[in-house]
Amino acid sequence: MQHDFFLSITFAQMSTSKKIKSLQELGEFGLIDRISKKIKSYQESTILGPSDDAGIVAHEKNTLVSSDLLIEGIHFDMTYTPLKHLGYKSVVVNLSDIYAMNAKPKQITVSLGFSSKYTLEAIDELYDGILLACKKYNVDIIGGDISSSPFGLIISVTALGENDENNIVKRSGAKENDLIVVSGDLGGAYLGLTILQREKEVWKSDPNMQPELDDFNYILQRQLKPEAREDVIQYLEKNKIMPTSMIDISDGLASEILHLCKQSEVGCQLYEEKIPIDQQTYNTAMDFNLNPSTCALNGGEDYELLFTINQKDFELVSKNTALSIIGHITKKESGYNLIGHGDTSIPITAQGWSHL
Amino acid sequence: MQHDFFLSITFAQMSTSKKIKSLQELGEFGLIDRISKKIKSYQESTILGPSDDAGIVAHEKNTLVSSDLLIEGIHFDMTYTPLKHLGYKSVVVNLSDIYAMNAKPKQITVSLGFSSKYTLEAIDELYDGILLACKKYNVDIIGGDISSSPFGLIISVTALGENDENNIVKRSGAKENDLIVVSGDLGGAYLGLTILQREKEVWKSDPNMQPELDDFNYILQRQLKPEAREDVIQYLEKNKIMPTSMIDISDGLASEILHLCKQSEVGCQLYEEKIPIDQQTYNTAMDFNLNPSTCALNGGEDYELLFTINQKDFELVSKNTALSIIGHITKKESGYNLIGHGDTSIPITAQGWSHL
Repeated sequence: MQHDFFLSITFAQMSTSKKIKSLQELGEFGLIDRISKKIKSYQESTILGPSDDAGIVAHEKNTLVSSDLLIEGIHFDMTYTPLKHLGYKSVVVNLSDIYAMNAKPKQITVSLGFSSKYTLEAIDELYDGILLACKKYNVDIIGGDISSSPFGLIISVTALGENDENNIVKRSGAKENDLIVVSGDLGGAYLGLTILQREKEVWKSDPNMQPELDDFNYILQRQLKPEAREDVIQYLEKNKIMPTSMIDISDGLASEILHLCKQSEVGCQLYEEKIPIDQQTYNTAMDFNLNPSTCALNGGEDYELLFTINQKDFELVSKNTALSIIGHITKKESGYNLIGHGDTSIPITAQGWSHL
Repeated sequence: MQHDFFLSITFAQMSTSKKIKSLQELGEFGLIDRISKKIKSYQESTILGPSDDAGIVAHEKNTLVSSDLLIEGIHFDMTYTPLKHLGYKSVVVNLSDIYAMNAKPKQITVSLGFSSKYTLEAIDELYDGILLACKKYNVDIIGGDISSSPFGLIISVTALGENDENNIVKRSGAKENDLIVVSGDLGGAYLGLTILQREKEVWKSDPNMQPELDDFNYILQRQLKPEAREDVIQYLEKNKIMPTSMIDISDGLASEILHLCKQSEVGCQLYEEKIPIDQQTYNTAMDFNLNPSTCALNGGEDYELLFTINQKDFELVSKNTALSIIGHITKKESGYNLIGHGDTSIPITAQGWSHL
């Protein structure tokens, strides 16, 4: 398991003291020029990047389209979110949606709105993270919009992906007796957020003290710099495993398994003891007097893949240590159940994130 | 010229008094269900709408992609903007970008963020406008995102269009001696905004008084409910006219002609007397002691099409009363010039909108 972290976190109020060149001085067109010069192209299917009224792509197969909106004060807190991580994450969460259709992301558009507290240096950092994610996942920026905002930062990303219609996996194809599989481990992103929120409270009472976060590297990375599971999609392709249904875990396992089951018109049985939880996630949950399974079920933002497979693919899936079989699909009438420690059966209900 | 207006404007602070059912009560998934039920599909190329991690489209030709971000307090003022108009406009401004590539819009994604002052009824009205624009222009909603926002309303739309690579028109193809053409008339949207801002000041000093806006129907419509020039693209196609370059006018004629010229590496000569200005636009400019030409050159938000044609297409273009020939393309060395009344030549400079 990777426990590295490419930037250290400093708690701080946004400051304008490091202003190198003002955004007002540069202007909208100057900023667009500055960003455009940094944009590279990795995809043959990109015909025209961000220089015209619209970008142009030439996909030979079907095109997948997914959009997400990230808003300061709702989806992220600038007190502890490094801008480079935020830029990276804003791309990754969209790519995750494309992988969740069993497709490959190819292009994105990026629209930004930011208030006057954001310096040119801050926008550069944010864009460095965006460009790093593009390089890592081989996706091209082909358009977007830049605007000021009266309050904070707004990031809107749309991702385009590509695959044959026959190979696209929807939420709706799960069948009775299929196995339920999840990638990686769950609950970490939520506990990373819990740590950051606790330390923010400590820091607010004494702004001269910076928090000690070294013991929480893994879960902080899960929260601040998640990755999309390109490797899982590649493994499935290489081993000719076609999931019967798939979704990515942005709102928590409970919420997502209910989406899969409802759209597939089936029920499910999950086994609590099979849900993959990292040791650091587990220990941190215990420190906060939280049930680790509840964090995994309702925490959200893990960006792992949840999918169902036919039983014939059991062995191939079992071989991959990044994948856990956590239950199976049942008849719709059996409902949605979690078998707990000691064989208790509890109905699964969705908490998800409640941004409204 | 159409002077109708489908909703009367009432100046008001946003109120929560009309709350029918609270958004909290409905929840994110409930709201998505509610909206999804109203969405219709008009396009054969839409394979899957907004029910999964991503929408799916099957374009046989190239795909055009354009994204815009509209933010309350920057791009619109809820004091005088009817929500239905706003929803309509937020779609139209994106479709305009697709038409500006000489392509047909087919699908959109719509992401919304809204603060707690927005009631379910308000979101319904906004969506009614979005759906009306989809119906008018035959585009399908295939995805998006819904979130709360700490401050006001955020609308992010991405539009997808389609055309053969050979028939797509970029900003970069204008050649010396080409004619410069603009659709409709210019400056109206800016003066509509000027009226609304003046009346808002009056209303703020006496909130019991509603403004008399009947004399300004046309320019208010230009500001609040612009249309995209689908008709112009259809005329060009029908008459086999292939513009050499094209852009839509969102930031004002001056800014857009400079984009065309710089990307085509040419100069231009525009004739002030040829710039199409509606009588109501002209009269309102005079009332405000503004130069009508300046409003047309720098006003923005007209969403007309600006394009260049080979001289061989002069007659066909002249026949269409919606099109005006306003100048011609020159060598790059000749610069960007406006020939004023009395044959004075003034260099064109871009003001555009300065949101930064």
